[in-house]
Order: sequence, then structure tokens, then C-alpha cells
Amino acid sequence: MELSVTQENFARALSIVGRVASNRTGLPILGNILLRTDGTRLLVAATNLEIAATCYVGAKIVKQGDITLPARLVSEYVSSLPKGTIELSSKGTSMTISSGNYSSIMTGVDATEFPELPSIDEKQAVTYTIAEADFKQAISQTIITTSNDTSRPVLTGVYWHTDGGQLYLAGTDGYRLAQRRLFETTSEIAAIVPTTSLQEVLRTISDATESVEVLFDDTQVRFRVGEAEITSRLIEGSYPNYQQLIPKTSDVTATLASGEFSRIVKVASLFARDSGGSVTVTIDSEKQQLSIHSIASELGENTSTASAEVAGDGNITLNSRYIADALNVIDGDPVQFRFSGKLSPCVLTAAEEAPNYTHIIMPLKS
Amino acid sequence: MELSVTQENFARALSIVGRVASNRTGLPILGNILLRTDGTRLLVAATNLEIAATCYVGAKIVKQGDITLPARLVSEYVSSLPKGTIELSSKGTSMTISSGNYSSIMTGVDATEFPELPSIDEKQAVTYTIAEADFKQAISQTIITTSNDTSRPVLTGVYWHTDGGQLYLAGTDGYRLAQRRLFETTSEIAAIVPTTSLQEVLRTISDATESVEVLFDDTQVRFRVGEAEITSRLIEGSYPNYQQLIPKTSDVTATLASGEFSRIVKVASLFARDSGGSVTVTIDSEKQQLSIHSIASELGENTSTASAEVAGDGNITLNSRYIADALNVIDGDPVQFRFSGKLSPCVLTAAEEAPNYTHIIMPLKS
Repeated sequence: MELSVTQENFARALSIVGRVASNRTGLPILGNILLRTDGTRLLVAATNLEIAATCYVGAKIVKQGDITLPARLVSEYVSSLPKGTIELSSKGTSMTISSGNYSSIMTGVDATEFPELPSIDEKQAVTYTIAEADFKQAISQTIITTSNDTSRPVLTGVYWHTDGGQLYLAGTDGYRLAQRRLFETTSEIAAIVPTTSLQEVLRTISDATESVEVLFDDTQVRFRVGEAEITSRLIEGSYPNYQQLIPKTSDVTATLASGEFSRIVKVASLFARDSGGSVTVTIDSEKQQLSIHSIASELGENTSTASAEVAGDGNITLNSRYIADALNVIDGDPVQFRFSGKLSPCVLTAAEEAPNYTHIIMPLKS
Repeated sequence: MELSVTQENFARALSIVGRVASNRTGLPILGNILLRTDGTRLLVAATNLEIAATCYVGAKIVKQGDITLPARLVSEYVSSLPKGTIELSSKGTSMTISSGNYSSIMTGVDATEFPELPSIDEKQAVTYTIAEADFKQAISQTIITTSNDTSRPVLTGVYWHTDGGQLYLAGTDGYRLAQRRLFETTSEIAAIVPTTSLQEVLRTISDATESVEVLFDDTQVRFRVGEAEITSRLIEGSYPNYQQLIPKTSDVTATLASGEFSRIVKVASLFARDSGGSVTVTIDSEKQQLSIHSIASELGENTSTASAEVAGDGNITLNSRYIADALNVIDGDPVQFRFSGKLSPCVLTAAEEAPNYTHIIMPLKS
């Protein structure tokens, strides 16, 4: 093969695709990136068999062909080159990549050894187009509560599902739960997308991204972000009926400024290191305040308070990190914090009517 | 004790001093920070027995006294508090620290258990006042070539010495060497200051720092940076006669743009990972260029060139990371790169008459 590309486009494609290539698997070919001419474009692709990433780059093709090259070396080399035209020319499994005063020869592997890239029947697929800001926010709000524990695979992904004509995303690790409502839709879906794949899609989004197209077939999902595509397997299994865990009403409610709540949680957490983050939140209707108490067994203790609009009285023991995480992703200020007794789940939302994001934290035993 | 301080001043003092406190030593008291009232000021101090850091904070003292508190907890707590006044009040070894809606009780240790802070007879000391920019640059330029190998303690510090009425700083790890000339002086010094202490002083410098005062006695050095003081022991032993290693003249010389040299070194280093960074630099007087060649045994090879003003011809094999480090700290553009044959040290300086900084790299066997 023989072609030229611009450094800017080639470096960007390699940076998107290169992250998916991995030397950690048993198959050395997965540590390589596939380059294949396709009409007037160059296909740049990598896969770890769970996720495949592809990106097209406009190219001036002199001679069609394909090859695979070591992912890290080619990515770092191209990203270090100055802006301008890069010439690529292969002979067997040897590729010369040069630009101005820079010239390298890389030893690759024949493209026939590269695994087949996954395909989706796009006409049959369930398709959503999501604005970039909504996509980023909804994914950030839900992956935060997914699990790393591979013994329950369904909890290691985000559950995309429709209910009553609305598209929802949900994540839970058994200790906390997040649900984000996206928009009305007529097409139905119920699919669990691995958190690792969603993180890869988030990294692919650039300032130039306006929207993300999402296509589901029965076993796979494809995210199309500009010229790049991330295709991932779905997680098999049925997702727990999480909605029954969200309390509709609560006995005790506090509404307060998000920033102040964050700050008192942060201060309290400093004293909660020995106790695994355990802090006690007390809501006091007479004083109209929310206070947090934490104890560092040998070092001391802390009480921090914030004024709040309060209904009811009570206290609940929670992991301070979980409260901080929730406040970090809730879009809206002030926030509402509510619970009923020490044992039932507590709810955090923006303090507005019908908020689109609901965050649940299970209490600790106190 | 009972006093009030501003959050801004107290947090800054704790952040400077807190880094020196350590829980890693066998003495738990060294993980604490000493607080002691001193007239209208609060002394904040920590030591790890090698380095002591002290800082004075203006305070409104109601009742004199002293105490020690857990360094990490008090530092993080105070830095998390909102700006404004902080009230401190102790009872025995228990200290209440409160600010607005925040209140903590910390359990400390009696100040009598804290080690005595080092003292220097300032009237007898050899003293230099160094402008902030010069200090930062000279330290950065010389600590980079000092050693981590504690089997030769003298090489783990920077050698401060006077010669011919000039103050010099020098560092070497046996593979490379850096010498920085500072300024003319009549007072004489020959002292080895631990790199770890100098790094601590660098971290203490803020945007408000105008100069650093340096005071030497026979066994200690004190750095005064605003209200803060870092006092360190000196390293015992005699420093090698490094100046004989600096070649006065060389057979081969190239003068080239620093940025372009850096870039071709970076590209070459990508292909030099398997060989421990080994690259071959070739200077060609006919082509008036400097080129770097590197080989990644199984993956390929690279040649990158830069145009240069060249006298002589030859090549030398060096560690690419050492060239990159040197280019990173040389103040001046273009730079001069010179050597004589494959085995003698190569010299990197700014391409100007009598540069104040000289960087030497020993060649690798090729």
C-alpha cells in the first residue's frame, strides 16, 4: 500500500482507536492497529474482542492495501511528528512512515491475521440520536453507580431501557442506584451496555462532536461519534427491577444549596477515613438545618452544619463518598435530600418538579 | 491555648509545614505538627529529623500555649474550611478548631514530646540572598543530575561551592553532570545540600516570593522563604573534583534550535525503549545536520534529522532521556552540542559566550 494523510487526522484516528488495542490479552495481534485503504479513505481499526473501534481518515491513495502495526509505537510516533503530510509506504509487512526530516520503518503483521470487525445490520437496528451534552451527562450520571464486581455481570453496565414511551438509563452496584430520563421515543429497547465501552465512547467525544448516534441489534451496540465508531457486545442477562427501590415519598426532606452540602460532606469525610467513610446526617426541623457528624476514633470528631429548608426530623448513616459522588453529578441547585428512617434508601435529586435524574443511596448500619 | 487566625494564612502555613511531617518514621510524634504561640504570632512547625520546616502566622492570641496535632488531618481540615476567621482552643491534649458552622475536636499529643527544632547561629552563618527566578532555575538545573543511590551519599545532594570568587552549584550521578554559575561573592562555601531538602524549598516558593535567603553553618543549611524556614542537615563527605570532567574543547560541534533538537530526541526515544533509551547522534559537516538513529529490535527503526551549524564529523551513543532532560533545563536557544570521539563526555550548553550552565552526559558503549 502507498498513501499520504495529514498528521492531524491520522494522529486523531490513532489516538481514538489505539486505546482499544491491548497487549494484555493472549493474542499479540490485538496489540496492533489495522490500516486498510478503502476507496479514497484509510480505515484505522483496533479491537480487544469486547470492543472494536474504527475511524476513517481522508487519504490520497496511490496503491491500495492493508497491514497491521504495533499500536503504541505507531500512535506515539505519529503524534510526535510535526503537522503536515505523512507518507506511508509498505513492502510486505514492513511499513515506512516519513514526514520531512523524520523517517521510520516499522515491522508489522499481515492484515489477514487480524480478527474480523463486528458488523451491525443498521437498517434493522434500534437507533437513537442523542445531543452531545445530554449524552455525556447521562453517561456520567449513571456509570458512577455501576459495579466493578464481575461476579454479577449485569451490574457492570448501564441499563438502557424504555418505559412508558421514555428512554431511561440506569446503573446500580447494590449500594446505590442512579436513573436518568432522556427523552420520549416510540422505539423500544432493553439492553445492558458495559461501563468500559461507555467510558471509551466518552473519551472519543471531542469539542467538534454535536451528537452521538446509538444503534442496537440483539447482541451489540454501536456508537457513532463523527468519523469514529465504537462497537461493543451487550451484557447478557436480565436487569433487576430497580424501580421498586426508588421511594416515591419520604418522611424527612431537606432542600439546600448544592455547594454548601458538598463542602460539609468533604469536611466530614476527613474524619470518616477510619470508619470507611461512615457519617451521620441529621435533619432538624426546628433549627431548619442539615448537619453531618463524623468520628475519627483516635484523632477526633467533627460536626458541620448547613442551613436548609426542612420538613420532618431524623438521622441516617451513609458513606460520605457516595453523597459527594451524587452531588457531583446532580444537575441542579438547590438539591433535595430525603429519607424515611434509618434503614430505607435515601434519595438525592435536583429540587425541582419532576427532575430527570434520581440518585439513591442505601444507608449503612449505624 | 486560645487564639484566632485567618483560614488563608493558617492553611498556607500548614501546607508548607505539613509535607515535612511523616508517619513513615518509627516515631509517631513526627506525624504531628507543632503549634506554639509566640508573642502575637503562632509558630507552625514539623520535622522528620533530616529537615525541619517552620512558618509563622499572625494571630490574635487570647491565651498562650502549645500542642501537637495530627498533620494530615489538621492540614486537610483547615484547607477545606471557608475563608474567614478560625478559632482554636485547647484543653489538655484536646483542641477545638471551629469556623462558622464547622466545629472539630482533635486529639493531639503534648508539645513536650516534640523534638527540639534545629537552631543556627545566624550571625556566624555564611549567607546568600538569591533572586527567586535564579534560585528556582539553578536548583532545577542541578537536582536533575543528582543521584538516588544512597550508597554514595555525597552524590544525592547539590554541591554549593565558591571558586575564583563565584558561587557555583553542581550535581552529578556519575552518568551526567550539571554545573550552574550563580554570581560573584566574597564569602566562601563548600557544602552538599540534600536534593530532597531542595525539592522541599522549591515547593515552598510561591508567586509572592521575591528572593530566598540561604544560611550555612558547619553542619546545617537554612532556607528562608518569606515567613517560612526550611532547615536541613548537610551531607557529610568530600565532593568529587568534578570540574576535571568538563571538556574545555571538543572535536565536533553542532549548534541548533533547541525545540527541534528536543523533538527529534523525543521521536527517536520512542524507538529506543527496548535498548534502555540508547540512541546514536551523528553530526555531518557536509550536510550541516545532526541526525539521531534508534532501533527497536523487533518493531522497527527511526532516523530523524535537524539542520545545524556544524564543525567536524562524528557520532556518539547516548541515553535519549538524558539529552531530553538537559534540553529541558538549558536556558538559551539555540543550543550547542559537542563531543570528541565515542568515549569522552559530551557537552550541552546554550550557544553563547561563557554560558552560566554546563551539562555533561557520559556516552554509552555502542
